[in-house]
Amino acid sequence: MNEFDFIARIRDRAREHGPGLLRGIGDDAAVFKSSPGSDLVVSTDLLVEDIDFERRTTRPELLGHKALAVSLSDIAAMGARPRWALLSIGVPGEIWNSGFLDEFYAGLFQVAKRYGVTLIGGDTSRTGEKIVIDSIVVGETAKPGGVYRSGAKPGDQIFVTGSLGDAAAGLRLLQRGARLHQHASNETHSDDAPSLDYLLLRQLCPEPRVGWGLLIGEQQLATAMIDLSDGLSSDLNHLCTESKVGALIDAAAIPINPLVTELSGRRALDPLMLALHGGEDFELLFTVETGNVDKLPKRVDGVSVTRLGEVTPAADGVRVREGSRTWELEPGGWQHFKGL
Amino acid sequence: MNEFDFIARIRDRAREHGPGLLRGIGDDAAVFKSSPGSDLVVSTDLLVEDIDFERRTTRPELLGHKALAVSLSDIAAMGARPRWALLSIGVPGEIWNSGFLDEFYAGLFQVAKRYGVTLIGGDTSRTGEKIVIDSIVVGETAKPGGVYRSGAKPGDQIFVTGSLGDAAAGLRLLQRGARLHQHASNETHSDDAPSLDYLLLRQLCPEPRVGWGLLIGEQQLATAMIDLSDGLSSDLNHLCTESKVGALIDAAAIPINPLVTELSGRRALDPLMLALHGGEDFELLFTVETGNVDKLPKRVDGVSVTRLGEVTPAADGVRVREGSRTWELEPGGWQHFKGL
Repeated sequence: MNEFDFIARIRDRAREHGPGLLRGIGDDAAVFKSSPGSDLVVSTDLLVEDIDFERRTTRPELLGHKALAVSLSDIAAMGARPRWALLSIGVPGEIWNSGFLDEFYAGLFQVAKRYGVTLIGGDTSRTGEKIVIDSIVVGETAKPGGVYRSGAKPGDQIFVTGSLGDAAAGLRLLQRGARLHQHASNETHSDDAPSLDYLLLRQLCPEPRVGWGLLIGEQQLATAMIDLSDGLSSDLNHLCTESKVGALIDAAAIPINPLVTELSGRRALDPLMLALHGGEDFELLFTVETGNVDKLPKRVDGVSVTRLGEVTPAADGVRVREGSRTWELEPGGWQHFKGL
Repeated sequence: MNEFDFIARIRDRAREHGPGLLRGIGDDAAVFKSSPGSDLVVSTDLLVEDIDFERRTTRPELLGHKALAVSLSDIAAMGARPRWALLSIGVPGEIWNSGFLDEFYAGLFQVAKRYGVTLIGGDTSRTGEKIVIDSIVVGETAKPGGVYRSGAKPGDQIFVTGSLGDAAAGLRLLQRGARLHQHASNETHSDDAPSLDYLLLRQLCPEPRVGWGLLIGEQQLATAMIDLSDGLSSDLNHLCTESKVGALIDAAAIPINPLVTELSGRRALDPLMLALHGGEDFELLFTVETGNVDKLPKRVDGVSVTRLGEVTPAADGVRVREGSRTWELEPGGWQHFKGL
């Protein structure tokens, strides 16, 4: 199979169907209309083998899922609806000739379908040894402008979707040799797969909070929003820096899955540290004016939301209250070039 | 320098200035308005070290130039105006700590400025050994829909900008050990740098035909267009496949730079083969209805245009006339996975 055959196959599978799409895969660039009254958002995420993922601890279809999911999460964090995706991928020759790419795109198309996203382009290259993936998503805001990181005001309440630390716990398990059961997937874990798989899938196959992002964008419920990719400590600091505010969050309020607490007890880990500094949960962190808090639904797509604390003046810094003491929350999440 | 410092620096340098830009670097995704009456086009190009470029044969600022230029060329090939760029880059630790990225972005920003493009986002990751770059450009069509590969009709005339085979000749020179003079750049080669540098720069620092693309898009002069990245033989076949037509081009009409002819004579190369199958010239190949040929300007931005031949019915195939004989033009350009 040469590149052109490969592109033709992906093009067939992408089935160009998005409203407003004038030209998808197969020309020099994709062409789409944007409707007046909404704005476009675009985000890109680069994943490098052995830095951002390991081939031996995941499966191709989970990697395809994650590659798209991480960019969908960025679009959700803007309060926007994801519409279009492009995928650049570089693989070594032996991967090109395996079933890897078929499975990778199967995972990618499954997520794309779930969230109404159309693959409209991309690029392929060869690499020496490692797989590299760049995933680009374009979305439309429900209201002009979308939801930025910069709108939080002192007095706003801080919320987070889902639970924190799951993906970090899953990563620790992988690093210690745990592996997914053969048929584990996001579709099965809640019923019949063991709890270990749940944590591994939170790391390997994150579900972007597209529904929450859309609802918050459409109803203009948040003053600021960010997705938790680097970790709560880093991302809350990002939001506060952009908004020129501080924050006080309550350690006891942080939603931690009982599985993480149980695992931590057995493996001498601190669940609070996983929840504060563990990256890749891809939950949404957002701030809401006190008067709008009652408008928040309890759940969207089965995912709950939890109040973590309150926005404070910038001079107060970003702090955590734990029992009777408060301490400053230093950014401590994942950084590719930390210490370099 | 950590990633966040790095992003802050790039953000400062990007100086978000594009009209319609609501949010550039520094949020989860960039946000921009598209004006009614034009459509948006988006393209992405992945460049992998030691596959698509070699660190030892180029300079960081030339690589930054090329990374953006190749995507600008795709936008030009749609008859569109480039507006926004995103850049994902993965580098090994020793590169992160060198002056490489400063020089890389200097080259990128120089091209961006020349063509009125604003850098609005991107991503960074670490790699083990090799540099990987994914460059994404979003543009606006002058007229709804832009210029596709698929509109050529039998009887249309085939044109190409600039000259062909230069970049392939430059690549051969690099492979045989030639290197750029220290201060050679696109700004100097025409006056005072030796001709060797001209050919090396055509490979290392291609100039996208943005002006030609815009003119053709605005005046709707072409029925189909593609940029020559894989090589004339491959790209003409792509255009003919998408348009469901054939083509007959005249070997004697192909614009070949005298430097390429001279080099070929000395190095036992066939200049026609370089021009037909050599990739990365990033010239524009387009088809024009006979009645519109007179409307084509002689030059745009100092770059000339040459008639290569004529579109024929699909059944006639894609052929070259060389003296008294004609032969079928098989796609023969660069493919990443050829023979795999």
